Amino acid sequence: MHALILGAAGMIGRRLVDALVKDGQVGGQTLSALTLLDVVPPAAPEGFSGPVRAEAADLTAPGAAEAAIAGRPGVIFHLAAVVSGEAEANLELGYRVNLDGTRLLLDAIRAANVADGYRPKLVFTSSLAVFGPPFPKVIPDDHILRPASSYGVQKAMGELMLADYARRGFLDGIGLRLPTICVRPGKPNKAASGFFSGIIREPLAGQEAILPVPDTVRHWFASPAAAVGFLVHAAGLDLAAIGPRISLTMPGVSATVAEEIEALRRAAGDKAVALIRRAPDATIARIVGSWPEAFEPEAALALGFRADGSFDAIVAQHVAEFHGG
Amino acid sequence: MHALILGAAGMIGRRLVDALVKDGQVGGQTLSALTLLDVVPPAAPEGFSGPVRAEAADLTAPGAAEAAIAGRPGVIFHLAAVVSGEAEANLELGYRVNLDGTRLLLDAIRAANVADGYRPKLVFTSSLAVFGPPFPKVIPDDHILRPASSYGVQKAMGELMLADYARRGFLDGIGLRLPTICVRPGKPNKAASGFFSGIIREPLAGQEAILPVPDTVRHWFASPAAAVGFLVHAAGLDLAAIGPRISLTMPGVSATVAEEIEALRRAAGDKAVALIRRAPDATIARIVGSWPEAFEPEAALALGFRADGSFDAIVAQHVAEFHGG
Repeated sequence: MHALILGAAGMIGRRLVDALVKDGQVGGQTLSALTLLDVVPPAAPEGFSGPVRAEAADLTAPGAAEAAIAGRPGVIFHLAAVVSGEAEANLELGYRVNLDGTRLLLDAIRAANVADGYRPKLVFTSSLAVFGPPFPKVIPDDHILRPASSYGVQKAMGELMLADYARRGFLDGIGLRLPTICVRPGKPNKAASGFFSGIIREPLAGQEAILPVPDTVRHWFASPAAAVGFLVHAAGLDLAAIGPRISLTMPGVSATVAEEIEALRRAAGDKAVALIRRAPDATIARIVGSWPEAFEPEAALALGFRADGSFDAIVAQHVAEFHGG
Repeated sequence: MHALILGAAGMIGRRLVDALVKDGQVGGQTLSALTLLDVVPPAAPEGFSGPVRAEAADLTAPGAAEAAIAGRPGVIFHLAAVVSGEAEANLELGYRVNLDGTRLLLDAIRAANVADGYRPKLVFTSSLAVFGPPFPKVIPDDHILRPASSYGVQKAMGELMLADYARRGFLDGIGLRLPTICVRPGKPNKAASGFFSGIIREPLAGQEAILPVPDTVRHWFASPAAAVGFLVHAAGLDLAAIGPRISLTMPGVSATVAEEIEALRRAAGDKAVALIRRAPDATIARIVGSWPEAFEPEAALALGFRADGSFDAIVAQHVAEFHGG
């Protein structure tokens, strides 16, 4: 099985490549070739003996989508996107990358399907941002699509078009609405959600972390490993059996900031917790206050998608990766 | 108030123009100018003394959307669309007209907003086709968007983008999900829904009508006059007060085929009913069987949208217009 990963240089993309290479298979078939594309050149993976094409590519450039699938990959992971804050700040960029990029990919697949019967599995990463307030405390699978951001609108439009092209038989498709990734590795960033990871990551590294919201704030999380697990699991599913609602809210861990802090304490003690500095920020609190708190992802659970076991497990995954266990 | 009507030569568009001219006002302001565009040249209305621009225009042609709003109309009715059957038969045409056409209009408005603060009211006609099975017997306002047709996908994508552009303040927007129009005037067509109108229209004209589905089939209807009433009412609403869910299911009359037939009998007697010939068609029955039966359009009712009073009223409206009352 030849796998194409769009967005292969990103935080999830790199881990997905590593996981596929380590597994040596995808969707129950031997991994035979890799095409890795991103706006920056992805690193070629170590330990894979098959052919690898790792290139910088802009999916919205003329001919780029056709070139991406020229090798007729059997499975495509479409992770390429402009993130939420950037899509809000730059409307044209967001629609171009998140909507047009997805549409160009879908249309390249359709043209290939018409030309030679090509019909890949397409695993599309969507987002909780397809939902918007008002929210019930626990959000069911059939909650209305009403995004409160341009990013959410673009992802919802992608979900709709993916479902249409799957219904018409051009591809086998599935959309995964990923939880907020935590603990996100790397440096602190300006994303409104950054503190959810920062209050774990920084103290574990002996550094101060800023907490701009009350301890009672609750949100929906998955570790990077769990997110990669969702993608790998999706590639192995019989997508013909899923039915018409192919974009699924992924399971996660619903945790409050207070619960995050107690998990940090259990992992690294009071000294680590003391590095969290409370600095209330009304703007961030207002943004985060409009976010969902918990989901009941029945469809995804029934299909075998599995979240991290607890927030302690989320912390443990980060510790094992970055602090030698 | 200058009104722009996109799709002005269509069945609803022509009636809307007539209604606006007859009212002499729109949205509480004097109707001062009309721009009427369609793929075929719209007729200029009689009895209107203000400036009228009535032209053939393809909204997806380069510069056409900018030209359409060059006169800075205060209210825009966007009715232009490729219909359901055509969008299903010709995927590229459907996405081009129904998605790109709407997007080009939205982007032309955005550019004008940025350039000179232009901020029109945009009344967008959407469709029940944004919903797909499985359905509850009565469908609430917050039912999940899960279209079962490319047309429904394109309308849902338009709704999402409209909401995003309204949220960002480029325009004041509202989307109206129109019920199936009945009695649709004109000749029988090949639309799967054609018989709903045909079994009233043809017998009233002394002609035979084909009924391809069981008498128990139930659906959601509005007369052409009610549909125009929704559009006119929407133009008069304070759209800033509607909140974030700006695409609304319009009220309608839920009726079975049997109830349609009894309304015909009350209006035109047994002789008319005898002109209905039952010719079961499994394909049409299957298509129509996946359609919604009834809605609970609470939000639209709260905003003052009003359906026809009964299926008898729907028949009476057709009789008054085409058979002299």
